[in-house]
Amino acid sequence: MPKVLVAGADGPLIGEQLRRCNLPELELQVGLAGAGAPFSGDVILGDPASVSALLDQCQSIRWVQSTWAGVTPLVQHSRRNYVLTGVKGIFGQAMAEFVLGWLLALERRIPDRAQGQRWDQRADGTLLGKTIGLMGTGSIGSHVARVCKGFGLSVRGLNSSGTAAEGVDHCYSAAQRLEFAQGLDYLVGLLPATPATDNLVDGALLERLNSGAIYINAGRANCTVDADLFRALQTGSLRAAVLDVTTQEPLPAGHPMWQLENLYLSSHTAAPTGIEAVVDVFCDNYRRYTRDEPLRHIIDFDRGY
Amino acid sequence: MPKVLVAGADGPLIGEQLRRCNLPELELQVGLAGAGAPFSGDVILGDPASVSALLDQCQSIRWVQSTWAGVTPLVQHSRRNYVLTGVKGIFGQAMAEFVLGWLLALERRIPDRAQGQRWDQRADGTLLGKTIGLMGTGSIGSHVARVCKGFGLSVRGLNSSGTAAEGVDHCYSAAQRLEFAQGLDYLVGLLPATPATDNLVDGALLERLNSGAIYINAGRANCTVDADLFRALQTGSLRAAVLDVTTQEPLPAGHPMWQLENLYLSSHTAAPTGIEAVVDVFCDNYRRYTRDEPLRHIIDFDRGY
Repeated sequence: MPKVLVAGADGPLIGEQLRRCNLPELELQVGLAGAGAPFSGDVILGDPASVSALLDQCQSIRWVQSTWAGVTPLVQHSRRNYVLTGVKGIFGQAMAEFVLGWLLALERRIPDRAQGQRWDQRADGTLLGKTIGLMGTGSIGSHVARVCKGFGLSVRGLNSSGTAAEGVDHCYSAAQRLEFAQGLDYLVGLLPATPATDNLVDGALLERLNSGAIYINAGRANCTVDADLFRALQTGSLRAAVLDVTTQEPLPAGHPMWQLENLYLSSHTAAPTGIEAVVDVFCDNYRRYTRDEPLRHIIDFDRGY
Repeated sequence: MPKVLVAGADGPLIGEQLRRCNLPELELQVGLAGAGAPFSGDVILGDPASVSALLDQCQSIRWVQSTWAGVTPLVQHSRRNYVLTGVKGIFGQAMAEFVLGWLLALERRIPDRAQGQRWDQRADGTLLGKTIGLMGTGSIGSHVARVCKGFGLSVRGLNSSGTAAEGVDHCYSAAQRLEFAQGLDYLVGLLPATPATDNLVDGALLERLNSGAIYINAGRANCTVDADLFRALQTGSLRAAVLDVTTQEPLPAGHPMWQLENLYLSSHTAAPTGIEAVVDVFCDNYRRYTRDEPLRHIIDFDRGY
């Protein structure tokens, strides 16, 4: 009978949902009994930071199911003799709402109008006829791309090899990043944190965007060169930026990033992992595990996603 | 050779675009020569209020192309011995941007986050799994419906007869308006001003919505009973309302509507008629007119749309 440890702050909530799922032959343990207590089972379900801190006390594990999309603490850990699975495929909707919500809000000046107390018929902007570039064209990028097409946007994609992706008009490889950026009205980051995605958005790339472009980063902070972004926002060559992710999280009150008028911060809330969605992914993989079938959403430790 | 009068404040801009279109055999006049000067031509292109004021000086007209979707000043005028055409089919994109922009902004708390200066990881809402009801299922409603489906919304429609409409899951007739409203999370007005649409959104209908629902009116103000809407907003049974249209326009500064915290006003900007789009509609109809072919987007004076 597989023994499953549910780790992390959401453990009690996740455990409660799991007990309702009637999984066959499951021995569930929520959290470790005490500091330093070892876990002798073979499966852990939890957030990457919590699981990473436990790896040394869990010598017998064979499979870790992450409850987060970003798994950096686990791929950076030296231990790799287990199967790590992620939660791909459940963030597309939330990311599409986040990206389109901010683009529409900025074009239609919704934050201003929400505050306004006077009749204001100044013309607003539109998405129609604009070009958006999505950095990252996996399941999230494809979902966002499809919703963008519904608003009449042209959609470019950037990925490591330039492979075509569903919903995207044309994909560029990482080596073609400046061509990708040339003439974009909107630039969107949906990338995992890996050495290959470090500093993709630098001054050279930002210069290629159309004047008045908007940058939204809902992936990880490592892809942005903050100093270059600040300069583009301060000169106004970039109209606005929306950062869901920052190098330092939580970003302390009083940090200069909070002060810049055309920089919006959303406190890493773009795509919260719904506990129900995570439990669905785990249950599907658990049934596969008990039947010795291949698990879904396996992470490649070398690629990091 | 048809003589065309371009009337209204946008006349010079529209005239300039029209001259670039190389329409065959067109004699163009922008505005009347002087107050009370008659116009002896057969075609007027202009906004309904301006054209309505000129009708008595334009005895020979055979066709009026409105530059606005709402044509109330013309259908209320006693003169009806000409063909009136509207500008249907060009507002869908703008309306979809307006409706989805506000829904996403309110669910994701974008106005708050745009102002915020502190890390705030409180969970936001989502459109996923919600039900939206569109009052009005013509070309605008169908366009909005398609975009809503891309965000995973269930879509109901309301029209006079309950006729099925593209993109809408189920349509209700005006007589079934309370069934239509039962359990909606979002209610959206996209209706023209006609006697049949007066006061559709009253207390009885608002009571049927889900607790915490959002109401967006981007049609005409006549469909809302303002006192009932105020009550629902003040008790909080309605989470928020976004009114693009108000009984009095422009709404004066200091009007109580500006004060209500969960009522947002957008100053009749939801779907501005792009001049280029209007010119396209006019050129298409003008070619038809010179060839004695049926015009497109003809308004029925009795129905009012």
